[in-house]
Amino acid sequence: MSTLAKAMSMFRLAVVQMQVTSVKADNLSRARRLVKEAAGQGGQVVLLPECFNSPYGTSFFPSYAERIPGESSQMLSEAAKENKVYLVGGSIPEEDGGKLYNSCTVFGPDGQLILKHRKIHLFDIDVPGKIRFQESETLSPGSSLSVFETPFCKVGVGICYDMRFAELAQLYSRKGCQLLVYPGAFNMTTGPAHWELLQRGRALDNQVYVATASPARDETASYVAWGHSTVVNPWGEVISKAGPEEAVIYADIDLQFLADIRQQIPITAQRRNDIYAVTSTQEGTS
Amino acid sequence: MSTLAKAMSMFRLAVVQMQVTSVKADNLSRARRLVKEAAGQGGQVVLLPECFNSPYGTSFFPSYAERIPGESSQMLSEAAKENKVYLVGGSIPEEDGGKLYNSCTVFGPDGQLILKHRKIHLFDIDVPGKIRFQESETLSPGSSLSVFETPFCKVGVGICYDMRFAELAQLYSRKGCQLLVYPGAFNMTTGPAHWELLQRGRALDNQVYVATASPARDETASYVAWGHSTVVNPWGEVISKAGPEEAVIYADIDLQFLADIRQQIPITAQRRNDIYAVTSTQEGTS
Repeated sequence: MSTLAKAMSMFRLAVVQMQVTSVKADNLSRARRLVKEAAGQGGQVVLLPECFNSPYGTSFFPSYAERIPGESSQMLSEAAKENKVYLVGGSIPEEDGGKLYNSCTVFGPDGQLILKHRKIHLFDIDVPGKIRFQESETLSPGSSLSVFETPFCKVGVGICYDMRFAELAQLYSRKGCQLLVYPGAFNMTTGPAHWELLQRGRALDNQVYVATASPARDETASYVAWGHSTVVNPWGEVISKAGPEEAVIYADIDLQFLADIRQQIPITAQRRNDIYAVTSTQEGTS
Repeated sequence: MSTLAKAMSMFRLAVVQMQVTSVKADNLSRARRLVKEAAGQGGQVVLLPECFNSPYGTSFFPSYAERIPGESSQMLSEAAKENKVYLVGGSIPEEDGGKLYNSCTVFGPDGQLILKHRKIHLFDIDVPGKIRFQESETLSPGSSLSVFETPFCKVGVGICYDMRFAELAQLYSRKGCQLLVYPGAFNMTTGPAHWELLQRGRALDNQVYVATASPARDETASYVAWGHSTVVNPWGEVISKAGPEEAVIYADIDLQFLADIRQQIPITAQRRNDIYAVTSTQEGTS
């Protein structure tokens, strides 16, 4: 392997698990500060949490929503450029054409917007006595797969509840993604039950790295996020994990290790395409 | 719910984790005794391990292989009938037309053969210094999905390495299976790393029950099975699990609980069929 190829086969991912408050300006300045901190520690790809500029809740989305470009995405663009990182900007409530979306913007090291992912699967669940949440009361869903390129590898983007749908990860993997990122805010019911399991399952089944970024836990919020932002390797092992509180965690993404796993347990080549297929029924952003 | 419907919505699954030796006659009599024991404890569906009549290894398959019907499947038929159970007969090396397969036979309470599943994905892996195994050195793969009906629910069948391929479980779930069974013999490398994770992932992603049956661990065997036969519920929780040694474990399969989970987190209805699809590219046994 050439020196350049070797350098490109390893990169540092930083996951920012930030405390989100009801003051948007504070959220933006805090995010900016933490992105700088992450880059200072060598983060080359930086991941922010779902709904990082607003409390998570359908009652908050209309008043915190912005157009893209707008105040929050402008800050993200500047932070990416200032720190020369790929910045996966968690998500914000987006307003467009009278509709609201839960949207993730991704910026390159030059500050250019390179991707916008609108959450495809809205979080509508009802576990009696535990958690009821209906994003569809105020949000509209996106309808596109979202993949972006870096000099290291392709990256697939989903938001939170998108992670429950194996098909999305399967398609991203088929499209060549080696890292899947899910800004997400699981809660105190689904967090302990499913947060880590879903990530490890996606990583193992597709032999990819998987990273999640949650807001830090705030017991006083109407929706209490689980926290525990995590990075999982293609063997299904957790390699980095935050507690509930604000933190920036790091993981070295090793694409040679990924290649080794795929050679050792070659499920990609062994798939029975004569028996089944996972297909995209439309082509989205890629 | 009527009394009959209620009775049909709950049934008892027994998983037989038996010690397999190099003496076929002993394996058959031991399996027969354990099926009787399982039925005596209320098991209505009984699951045997992969390769229950033969040591697991490519060097053993040719000499232990049988046609179906044959000695081993005849025993299974009789055991099912005598104990009035649905018997998922783990697997045996099958000979047919000069080829060998890793095959699972399923018998109804009347002793009739209701399904034969030939392992679709052959176990060919090579983790340097840990485990190398190439089933394809002696075995041929099957090419059919395998679903059988019981008065309780539909059941999908895979064998061991089949479990690594999410598509199979997805298709079984789409076909209405509420229980997936995988006779399997993971080893001392992949067992601790992936055995439980794969089962929990399949169960959670498809909101089904998943059961595995392993041979008991034999440290003197050329291939040392992990053991730890397991049953997982549709919430992704392990509800029954064996240690490494011979044991029969039981689990009450509660289809009302399954229905509740699917209502609470309705991912089946929320799938975006306008964006992706998992499809069968041929129709197999069903």
